[in-house]
Amino acid sequence: MPRPPNPEVRVRLLEAGIELIHVRGFHGCGVKDITEEAGVPKGSFYNYFESKDAFVVDVLALYWQAIERRHGGLLLDSTVAPVDRVKLFFNALADGHESREFALGCLIGNLSLELAGTSSASRDQLLALLTRWEQLVADCVTLGQADGSVPRTHDARELASVLIEAWEGAVLRAKVTRARAPYQRFEESVMPRLLAGL
Amino acid sequence: MPRPPNPEVRVRLLEAGIELIHVRGFHGCGVKDITEEAGVPKGSFYNYFESKDAFVVDVLALYWQAIERRHGGLLLDSTVAPVDRVKLFFNALADGHESREFALGCLIGNLSLELAGTSSASRDQLLALLTRWEQLVADCVTLGQADGSVPRTHDARELASVLIEAWEGAVLRAKVTRARAPYQRFEESVMPRLLAGL
Repeated sequence: MPRPPNPEVRVRLLEAGIELIHVRGFHGCGVKDITEEAGVPKGSFYNYFESKDAFVVDVLALYWQAIERRHGGLLLDSTVAPVDRVKLFFNALADGHESREFALGCLIGNLSLELAGTSSASRDQLLALLTRWEQLVADCVTLGQADGSVPRTHDARELASVLIEAWEGAVLRAKVTRARAPYQRFEESVMPRLLAGL
Repeated sequence: MPRPPNPEVRVRLLEAGIELIHVRGFHGCGVKDITEEAGVPKGSFYNYFESKDAFVVDVLALYWQAIERRHGGLLLDSTVAPVDRVKLFFNALADGHESREFALGCLIGNLSLELAGTSSASRDQLLALLTRWEQLVADCVTLGQADGSVPRTHDARELASVLIEAWEGAVLRAKVTRARAPYQRFEESVMPRLLAGL
């Protein structure tokens, strides 16, 4: 008789997946690597996930949840000016990437390029997470427009999109150069100009 | 006795590699897929390339050569204002991506995220190609600064870097959304503001 599913094992598998897929990519690690990392028998993977494709959808969700839990508060902190919240948020993400010497990048960006061309389930999840991220940033932009610190010349959602896109490009470059310079360019050149609406 | 290497077979393998790795990623296709696509026996791959890691370094070089051959002239066309050359170049790249419905993205960006974290040979090649690309764009920026159309407030190389980074981020997003909007935001919001030096 199969054992009843254990939610703790499920989370352990997802956390192993976040780490391994972040380092090696989706196709760069197998189910066996993930179960070994999680310390569970290989066969048990399929008690929890229908397939590796279904697994990565949940990996992405948990990855983003952790980001929101750790850094999302920065975007919601009403004691800080809205524009500064956005700056602090991206800066905190950069600090996280620096702690791994920029070699990992952003799992959402990595899987956007590795999987969005071929896996529709991953693509749907990436679309949902990018939309969620965009909404959180757009909410700050809208508040900035209300208090006059961000010009109303641009749509808040569009501005949020372009910030996230430029950010992901900086992450990509830093993964090659292994230096903070692309993040600095984003923080010092791109973000202020876009938020100034110039 | 092994057959003497045939340069035509080598190029066929590289072209098969560009196509397959662009669609499925480096780890998403094997040597057998590549030799099958090229129509050569699997064993012959290693007459031309020491390893799949060495192969992808040459795949990247050939990919970039094709871009320079097709579009590089736009950056060198002295009958066009330097700033417009940069705009036309990125626009031509976007047209190329649109022809594959944005599902492939840029091979340099894809492999930056898939391989730069784990393969030092790929990382060195990506670094070289990004530097080359940056130099070509920076040369136009420098010309624009000389003719007064681009302010001298920013270093030409830094500006070229930030343009390429923002571009790669747009490509990434478009691979998820399968729409030209991120390229349009880059062309209409990011690039003009950065080139205006505001």
